Amino acid sequence: MAMVCLSDFEAYAKKYLPKIAWDYFAAGADDCTTRDENILAYKRIRFRPRMLRDVSVMDIRTKILGSEISFPVGIAPTGFHQLAWPDGEKSTARAARAMDTCYVVSTYSTSTLEDISAAAPGGLRWFQIYIHSNRAASQQLIQRAEALGFQALVLTADLPYTGKRRDDVRNGFRLPPHMKVKNLEGAFEVCKMSPLDPSVTWNDIYWLRSLTHLPIIIKGILTREDAELAVRHGVQGIVVSNHGGRQLDEGPATIDALVEVVEAVRGRIEVYMDGGVRKGSDVLKALALGAKCVFIGRPALWGLAYKGEEGLQDVLRILQDEFRLSMALAGCASVSEIGQHLVQFSKL
Amino acid sequence: MAMVCLSDFEAYAKKYLPKIAWDYFAAGADDCTTRDENILAYKRIRFRPRMLRDVSVMDIRTKILGSEISFPVGIAPTGFHQLAWPDGEKSTARAARAMDTCYVVSTYSTSTLEDISAAAPGGLRWFQIYIHSNRAASQQLIQRAEALGFQALVLTADLPYTGKRRDDVRNGFRLPPHMKVKNLEGAFEVCKMSPLDPSVTWNDIYWLRSLTHLPIIIKGILTREDAELAVRHGVQGIVVSNHGGRQLDEGPATIDALVEVVEAVRGRIEVYMDGGVRKGSDVLKALALGAKCVFIGRPALWGLAYKGEEGLQDVLRILQDEFRLSMALAGCASVSEIGQHLVQFSKL
Amino acid sequence: MAMVCLSDFEAYAKKYLPKIAWDYFAAGADDCTTRDENILAYKRIRFRPRMLRDVSVMDIRTKILGSEISFPVGIAPTGFHQLAWPDGEKSTARAARAMDTCYVVSTYSTSTLEDISAAAPGGLRWFQIYIHSNRAASQQLIQRAEALGFQALVLTADLPYTGKRRDDVRNGFRLPPHMKVKNLEGAFEVCKMSPLDPSVTWNDIYWLRSLTHLPIIIKGILTREDAELAVRHGVQGIVVSNHGGRQLDEGPATIDALVEVVEAVRGRIEVYMDGGVRKGSDVLKALALGAKCVFIGRPALWGLAYKGEEGLQDVLRILQDEFRLSMALAGCASVSEIGQHLVQFSKL
Amino acid sequence: MAMVCLSDFEAYAKKYLPKIAWDYFAAGADDCTTRDENILAYKRIRFRPRMLRDVSVMDIRTKILGSEISFPVGIAPTGFHQLAWPDGEKSTARAARAMDTCYVVSTYSTSTLEDISAAAPGGLRWFQIYIHSNRAASQQLIQRAEALGFQALVLTADLPYTGKRRDDVRNGFRLPPHMKVKNLEGAFEVCKMSPLDPSVTWNDIYWLRSLTHLPIIIKGILTREDAELAVRHGVQGIVVSNHGGRQLDEGPATIDALVEVVEAVRGRIEVYMDGGVRKGSDVLKALALGAKCVFIGRPALWGLAYKGEEGLQDVLRILQDEFRLSMALAGCASVSEIGQHLVQFSKL
Repeated sequence: MAMVCLSDFEAYAKKYLPKIAWDYFAAGADDCTTRDENILAYKRIRFRPRMLRDVSVMDIRTKILGSEISFPVGIAPTGFHQLAWPDGEKSTARAARAMDTCYVVSTYSTSTLEDISAAAPGGLRWFQIYIHSNRAASQQLIQRAEALGFQALVLTADLPYTGKRRDDVRNGFRLPPHMKVKNLEGAFEVCKMSPLDPSVTWNDIYWLRSLTHLPIIIKGILTREDAELAVRHGVQGIVVSNHGGRQLDEGPATIDALVEVVEAVRGRIEVYMDGGVRKGSDVLKALALGAKCVFIGRPALWGLAYKGEEGLQDVLRILQDEFRLSMALAGCASVSEIGQHLVQFSKL
Repeated sequence: MAMVCLSDFEAYAKKYLPKIAWDYFAAGADDCTTRDENILAYKRIRFRPRMLRDVSVMDIRTKILGSEISFPVGIAPTGFHQLAWPDGEKSTARAARAMDTCYVVSTYSTSTLEDISAAAPGGLRWFQIYIHSNRAASQQLIQRAEALGFQALVLTADLPYTGKRRDDVRNGFRLPPHMKVKNLEGAFEVCKMSPLDPSVTWNDIYWLRSLTHLPIIIKGILTREDAELAVRHGVQGIVVSNHGGRQLDEGPATIDALVEVVEAVRGRIEVYMDGGVRKGSDVLKALALGAKCVFIGRPALWGLAYKGEEGLQDVLRILQDEFRLSMALAGCASVSEIGQHLVQFSKL
Repeated sequence: MAMVCLSDFEAYAKKYLPKIAWDYFAAGADDCTTRDENILAYKRIRFRPRMLRDVSVMDIRTKILGSEISFPVGIAPTGFHQLAWPDGEKSTARAARAMDTCYVVSTYSTSTLEDISAAAPGGLRWFQIYIHSNRAASQQLIQRAEALGFQALVLTADLPYTGKRRDDVRNGFRLPPHMKVKNLEGAFEVCKMSPLDPSVTWNDIYWLRSLTHLPIIIKGILTREDAELAVRHGVQGIVVSNHGGRQLDEGPATIDALVEVVEAVRGRIEVYMDGGVRKGSDVLKALALGAKCVFIGRPALWGLAYKGEEGLQDVLRILQDEFRLSMALAGCASVSEIGQHLVQFSKL
Repeated sequence: MAMVCLSDFEAYAKKYLPKIAWDYFAAGADDCTTRDENILAYKRIRFRPRMLRDVSVMDIRTKILGSEISFPVGIAPTGFHQLAWPDGEKSTARAARAMDTCYVVSTYSTSTLEDISAAAPGGLRWFQIYIHSNRAASQQLIQRAEALGFQALVLTADLPYTGKRRDDVRNGFRLPPHMKVKNLEGAFEVCKMSPLDPSVTWNDIYWLRSLTHLPIIIKGILTREDAELAVRHGVQGIVVSNHGGRQLDEGPATIDALVEVVEAVRGRIEVYMDGGVRKGSDVLKALALGAKCVFIGRPALWGLAYKGEEGLQDVLRILQDEFRLSMALAGCASVSEIGQHLVQFSKL
């Protein structure tokens, strides 16, 4: 079977992963409306392609927080990569480095930060964190990440409690006994009562800031009001995200929310997004609407499920080729030529 | 089979209820457009969730007409509960009391008001009435309810004649011989020519008022004009309702009509709604758009059909958990923080 | 099988009519978009029902061109009723008279005007005409109709040529040998090269006027421009129609065009409509948007196919009951209370 | 099987062509959204037909760049006609001449320009070109075409690189060994690394102009900005096209882009369009929105696949008949009466 586009990897993963793992990765909250809307919303955006522009030399590199990456697609933080591939996050780290892009490592990894770092020395990595009720544990994690050379912290803001994913409830989802949430071992037990602190507020950004020299990025922002608060609290970046539709169902698709957030931020900090990216042209749309970079969640897991590090590289390479081609066909030779003039919202 | 969300109860009821009973409960008028729109309309409303707000302590209690309930979901008046469960309305009353919420008892109950009251003493109950051609019968019913401690009257305004529910016509629906419309026994025969009075007008509100000290709530209002009339005629509350889509087909979905009614009422009286509530997030949307409380009709019957009192409690508990979680994920720690800023109408 | 609503008759006709006849009646032009839109467009109109109005005495009678009918639904002109029932148009005439409404007899009838008149003396009938290349034939037909007591002429304006109905082409549709277009016998041969005159213009209205004292109604108007021309040329009425979607495909649904035509006419003459009426509430919507009366085409043929005169009466009686019920549930006790305030166009 | 409308030819071709050829002709880029939108977008345009206009004498002829054609539908440039019919482009040329319309010959023909010209001497033909990296080859082709009596050059602007057509990748599409891209033989090898020059810009229009006296038409324009540039660079015509949805997916449907382009051009040069034309009424819509003529791509190939020259004539004749009928039913007797007043965009 030829792997031509990302849905080929999705079909493969659905066929070969254990049902409980597939369901966990695929899950959306409640009716999965937002999960599916993340994808559908791209369809309502139409390109306005320009012709007869010199696109013989294409430059698709970009910078995020000052670090150059090979193209504006990174790996979003998702948990439990060993469910997809035995080597788990270590394979992810190697693929990301090979493709010269950024990997946002999840707190809920099935490998330690140390093992992930050792697997792909020199790779560009950010660390995704929650603020735990046990603040000392959070502090310790952050300092481990900083010491290991992670280059930014990504605070997930949309999970004071875990969303209701019906299939996980039906399946009684839990990690198989031989997998562990390695980074939290000792500190606390996961997958029972959530140890995350639902009392976290914007003031805790100051507490985070006091712990680390790393840039702080806030993930899960969907409104102009929160975007403004993020800027005012001094974070370095925003990831427009709805957690892949796994938290509050029936919030906005991220590509729709992106417009509102970008408008509010007015260029003061970098804005990224995740959710529903399945084609190179989705990346182009997100950049046209003001994202500096997008991150892929489920497609990365499908790549891992297909062939580990190599499969994930395939996924990234397809996206890269598609992104480059879309840019050229839309008349842009470099990322700096991408702008809002390239798109319009369909009246449908 | 795990009962995870309300559609699980629906599937159960559809499978195990006698077809004629299922059809009766499920019926909508004509093409069932409004029945189905009640549900679809929620999908066109998107949340604008706010992040990083302290939601560690959640307060989902509210008050309706001064009585506190455990969360803003009550039991709408529906007829013939014995079709769903042998103990009928008595089970409903016990479940509502156990869950600390309001049960609006239907005139078309298969238990007497006295038996219902005795089944769950101290529960918060309202009584749903029609105005019958035989006004003395109406008066007697109202006075029985008041004497039994019912705390409000809910006048159904949208049934001068019964809507055309095709399946009921095809099935020749009628109550099985061992069930009776207990509250009307003696007074008149039901299920033949409707004994309801189609000449009722707003002036009859004054007549009602003269009969009772109870607050009067009017159910079935769908326009700003009628909302204004309701306020002017001195009622204490409005239930925005289209009778579950069983009366005039192709009127508005109730969540859409709610906006118009709330705007017209301008806070002068309480506004409630029923129709299409299937998830905790539907409740949150209704409250964001100005409803003080919502009522569930068919889902309560599915709960009864599943396991009587216990099944209905399951339904209410699921709604309660989902509502609390939605609130938290949208950034609200108490009902008083819910407002219109939380939602927007999708352009689709 | 219980005949509860008009789609029951449709299902019956589809099952029992010869395929070639069913296909002919069901046919729409090209992709049948307009045929289907005629029905779908009603779904985009929502009622704004009013409550607590005295609807104990319902008056659904109305007048068209001064003649009273039992309710605002007449029989549209459709051809070849013998394809549906052996007695053809004679049964139609009897059913219309029995139900006290207007029957617009088609030029393409399989009975003569004389036989139709004799079948139901005293019935209210209009005569639908084309202007033929052979004008003397047209004149003769008109004068026969006037002499027989027909009370208006309905000039079909949308058939300079016959629309392309793919199934009729595939089936090689033609009348069975034992059926004849009776009114044209002798005058000319039908179903070969159309004898209709495609050079007809508005000036021919004056020629028509010179031939007859009957009121002239023009059928097939879909735009404000043509509505204005109709008024200026002195016709007495307009039927907003797209010929059941059998002529130009992808024109407007008639209920949508009605709004534009009514606005242009400003009450100077009566406006009727046909197309897609399947329920009593469709009639109510058309009246709310300004139609004086609607006409049914295919549903009348389904009624004939079911049981001839009796079946058509069933169809009319169902529509009548549904219309009366819709009016009552919308808060109108008489046709004069119906107005635009009753409806709104859905944003969908 | 009767061939009644263009989808009959599509069904035939899908059934009888080798899968790899069918897939190649049917292919769209990525998700095929734009390919399908080209067709769907017509459905959102509604006619506003006018009645009682003299349509007894219909004139459907028009002129493009001064040459008269029998009706405003030409043959769009598509490659590899031998995949559809053994005689390939020679049959196409004969059919176009027989139907008295214009055939835009593709650079990627499987016959030489000389053979095509010899097959149908005197036919109106334009030549579609790319600008190749090997400019001498381009120059030579253009001069051959001019010498052979081609009457215009059509520069394809939307293919700096080939779009990603998934099925072609899966099928490993390539021409069968016995077919050749005849016009390029010797000059360079096709179907490997594209020899097209992705560095082409608007300035190359001046270079083209210097090579030939033929009018230059630019194909692939979708925005007002590029339309304005086309006018300023002195081309004689624009073909609004998205390459049948085979290049950048999720750009606009051509009928939608046409409106924008026509508005920008303000009559200074002729505007044509291709994409999604499947019925005579589609042609009427395109003309109402300002196109001077439309071109058909896939339907021409289906006609060839059906019966070569004869099949393509069938396709053109059906379109011609449908176009004439649509015009008449909309109230237009000649192409000059077609205007924007005939259409409106549906709110849906």
